[in-house]
Amino acid sequence: MKILLKIMYDGSGYCGFQYQPTGKSIQGVLTECVSKAFGMPCLVTGCSRTDAGVHALGYCAMVEPSDKLLRESCWCTVPAEKIHRMLNVYLPDDICVVGAAYVEGDFHPRYNATGKEYVYRFRDAVCPDPFTVGRVYQVKRPIGEAELAKMNEAAKFIVGKHDFASFMASGSSVTDTVREVYSLEVDRIGEFDVEIRISGNGFLYNMVRIIAGTLLDVAYGKINPAEMEKIINSKDRSTAGTTAPAHGLYLSQVFYDRKIEFSAK
Amino acid sequence: MKILLKIMYDGSGYCGFQYQPTGKSIQGVLTECVSKAFGMPCLVTGCSRTDAGVHALGYCAMVEPSDKLLRESCWCTVPAEKIHRMLNVYLPDDICVVGAAYVEGDFHPRYNATGKEYVYRFRDAVCPDPFTVGRVYQVKRPIGEAELAKMNEAAKFIVGKHDFASFMASGSSVTDTVREVYSLEVDRIGEFDVEIRISGNGFLYNMVRIIAGTLLDVAYGKINPAEMEKIINSKDRSTAGTTAPAHGLYLSQVFYDRKIEFSAK
Repeated sequence: MKILLKIMYDGSGYCGFQYQPTGKSIQGVLTECVSKAFGMPCLVTGCSRTDAGVHALGYCAMVEPSDKLLRESCWCTVPAEKIHRMLNVYLPDDICVVGAAYVEGDFHPRYNATGKEYVYRFRDAVCPDPFTVGRVYQVKRPIGEAELAKMNEAAKFIVGKHDFASFMASGSSVTDTVREVYSLEVDRIGEFDVEIRISGNGFLYNMVRIIAGTLLDVAYGKINPAEMEKIINSKDRSTAGTTAPAHGLYLSQVFYDRKIEFSAK
Repeated sequence: MKILLKIMYDGSGYCGFQYQPTGKSIQGVLTECVSKAFGMPCLVTGCSRTDAGVHALGYCAMVEPSDKLLRESCWCTVPAEKIHRMLNVYLPDDICVVGAAYVEGDFHPRYNATGKEYVYRFRDAVCPDPFTVGRVYQVKRPIGEAELAKMNEAAKFIVGKHDFASFMASGSSVTDTVREVYSLEVDRIGEFDVEIRISGNGFLYNMVRIIAGTLLDVAYGKINPAEMEKIINSKDRSTAGTTAPAHGLYLSQVFYDRKIEFSAK
């Protein structure tokens, strides 16, 4: 048995999920805290890397003992509900467990994922909000009804199975750049906030941030919505728009090939 | 002419509004930034002290040159709208101007105030939220419909003109403890958030935090709603409930004896 945790985190103070020898990572802090909580060295495996400054609303990370013999035993008998609450006592304020569940021994939080959902948040008020700094991308000009409609028009071209090479940051070693985007919507969610919600079977390096940046370029008239098709077909990063900053991005959901019953929030 | 600023701030990193020789204050940072922006030493006068960690959604602070001769002249001819935008360039991320207006030379942001409104925020989810840490008081048990009704029942006793000595922290030098509370409501504002909104002609030291803590004691059954009358009449701090922590409190509005037309948000 292994334990799968669903976590929220404010990525502002972190160099990303993945452990780094220098710099504070979510994986590093999580490993330290769960090891302390369980009273034994533990391994933490994530569902994906997230960039420095990226946040999570429903990241999935797996916990198991480092010790091989213990790992293969039924090492933990504490109900998932209790683990959920116990870990929050050990975790810092900017990381929080929102659910815990036992999963089978062969489960892997990354390889058993069938898809993910991300949210990207823009704020378009004239003045920034001291209470959301670092958690939303403050844009320079308002996004009106017409701009929102253009973003959604452009978004339609992204949905579906495509080669997304134009939306992958250079420097990635990935060669198969075909991904399927299940859904992509742009909505105003508050007086001053606009949210992009995108789900798909997988995302290339910086893909969501490039899509967000490109949709903003569409809003501001730099790119015509109908050009999206040409941008995708070009398979050339330089044809797409700018990469929106990390701090507006949230990994919101991970979908799995099985039903996982997390302890209640 | 003087300039009145309406500001929002996240008080987390500050020792309160008031300048302190040691410690970072809102007044200190504001003075430094406006002096830089106007290119001359400026004086900043606040509408009230706020405790360390307390936030503001609509604090009012007045700006004028330190130089007496300049102060008595029409020293600034820049439209309020432009001052509003310009200052946000100079201010740190956790302080933001949301409006600016010119006011008459004899105006004082504290003495011309006829009242204030505060908001106090509780969060009652099982797990804390990494994105609102330090900005809401995370309580230990859920506040259900019945608890909310009890809080509102107790709140009714607070509204009106009373001697609020029971709701003043010890150590205050204030002798006249009669204040008028115009309105006091407790509402659920999100799945996990409960908000107290209180307005009045003035508030004693820690009065809102003691009212918030007392209403929470009412919610959790430690104090009966009908006891509120007795608590007020006792004029004894020890009869009221606990003082809720500073980080759930927001100064939300200041009312003035004249119409002030702030530049638009």
